Amino acid sequence: MKIPITFLGTSQAIPTEKRNHTAVLLKYRDETILIDCGEGTQRQFRKVHLNPCKITRILITHWHGDHVLGLPGLFQTLALSNYPKTLHIYGPRGTKRFINEIYKMFLFAGKLKIEVKEVNGKFFENNDFYLEATPLKHGAGVNGYSFIEKDKIRLDKNKLRKLKIKGKIISDLQKGEDIVWQGRKIKAKDITYLQKGKKITFLWDTVLFENCYKAAKNSDLLISESNFTEKEAELAREYKHLTAKQAAQIAKKSKVKKLILTHLSQRYENNENIILNEAKKVFKNTILAEDLMKVEV
Amino acid sequence: MKIPITFLGTSQAIPTEKRNHTAVLLKYRDETILIDCGEGTQRQFRKVHLNPCKITRILITHWHGDHVLGLPGLFQTLALSNYPKTLHIYGPRGTKRFINEIYKMFLFAGKLKIEVKEVNGKFFENNDFYLEATPLKHGAGVNGYSFIEKDKIRLDKNKLRKLKIKGKIISDLQKGEDIVWQGRKIKAKDITYLQKGKKITFLWDTVLFENCYKAAKNSDLLISESNFTEKEAELAREYKHLTAKQAAQIAKKSKVKKLILTHLSQRYENNENIILNEAKKVFKNTILAEDLMKVEV
Repeated sequence: MKIPITFLGTSQAIPTEKRNHTAVLLKYRDETILIDCGEGTQRQFRKVHLNPCKITRILITHWHGDHVLGLPGLFQTLALSNYPKTLHIYGPRGTKRFINEIYKMFLFAGKLKIEVKEVNGKFFENNDFYLEATPLKHGAGVNGYSFIEKDKIRLDKNKLRKLKIKGKIISDLQKGEDIVWQGRKIKAKDITYLQKGKKITFLWDTVLFENCYKAAKNSDLLISESNFTEKEAELAREYKHLTAKQAAQIAKKSKVKKLILTHLSQRYENNENIILNEAKKVFKNTILAEDLMKVEV
Repeated sequence: MKIPITFLGTSQAIPTEKRNHTAVLLKYRDETILIDCGEGTQRQFRKVHLNPCKITRILITHWHGDHVLGLPGLFQTLALSNYPKTLHIYGPRGTKRFINEIYKMFLFAGKLKIEVKEVNGKFFENNDFYLEATPLKHGAGVNGYSFIEKDKIRLDKNKLRKLKIKGKIISDLQKGEDIVWQGRKIKAKDITYLQKGKKITFLWDTVLFENCYKAAKNSDLLISESNFTEKEAELAREYKHLTAKQAAQIAKKSKVKKLILTHLSQRYENNENIILNEAKKVFKNTILAEDLMKVEV
């Protein structure tokens, strides 16, 4: 099953004509997970013809304005649209305090049920996937996030057909249990195969350190900030951001399959290939995110 | 001198693909006045290639989210861009409290100088124009605003040339004072004419009552909300909004020259002519606002 990811906003702190503030949407079965919610995110939903009421969880990387100022307006729209569920919000330490501040200014507080958790490590799990937060280093407390699909035991349908196995007993094979079928012992491992789950990691904003590699490890897709180039490595250190080269180094060392760079600066508005080329020298399978771009993993 | 007005956002509470939240920009000589600042307004500046650092004053009609949620992000961008002046913010009662709440969450507070005034009646004046707030009626405290250019005494240049009047003495005529030129008495009124100043009024959100007519009186341009049509007059009353017909009635009775309807609902996204036609039946010189539209008065 393909996992669609939509880039709702891809700019750095100041938006440009083409790039809105940071927000990425991941859909998986019944879950619609929003990672960060910069100003104007609810309007980006309209532009890709998605209903913000479908959101199930919001993952906040950190509480700098360009990553969260779309929350109050989104809350208002969800309240006005009679959002029927409890909205789950996860973030680094401090998230509860900030959500409380927003609530104080919020006119429809009674109308929207919100549950807030400050997270570190694995923080959500169901039958199909789990979510993991990795603390990163920036001016504010910041989390990187990984969506990790669980490995699945799949049936080899050709073999099933050949052996004419039918009925409820198939579910035992799917659990990895050996069965007896028409007097014959059938080993689960002979009739099933393991489908590796996918891993998607989101890394912004941070300096380069060991947790970046740890979070990104073996990801099918790494979505990373790329606020600076190596020419500005000094600035990157000062403002605690990654350069394009560093993002690519993470991808390479962590054996990532594909890298998408986002959180792109207005300084490169007319010359973004500099960023792309710097990363590609280190990690070839890199592309730049664009607003409203959709990829499937 | 033409006064340019740019519609940065024209939607009602929930934005649509084509319409962002409310914000209108009026430029006049050295002044750049923003009326309301809905979420995403700073990005709309980018789209019309205007620099938000040019803003001199912000007029807030009321503190509902769709009119103000662009303020925190705008403040952040002004701070990051080293906005050099004091930013003047005006609004109805409660404005100081709300600005304080925003400031608490704001990371660059020390970097941006803001002066906030809660206003009613005339609240700013210079040689060329003044600004007036008229209390309206909505769920929250709300102000309508008028920009009123002062009448100017203009010189009839043909007559000046004929009489060969030159030098500093001309400024006396401009003040409306009679002069003596080469022994001859010259009356100011014979050599000058009065150029009527322009009036532009902004009315949203409100129920229809006497102050609407008062604020709009003799405006060259009335920009009014039009959240409902007469079919939904019941809802309009309940939510304290104007219908298209009521906006047109204000324009007609107040002898307005031109009416622009804004704050348009997603419910009419594919059928906006209903709104326009309803208004035009009462007041012919009406148009609908569009995002990024520029008009000159």
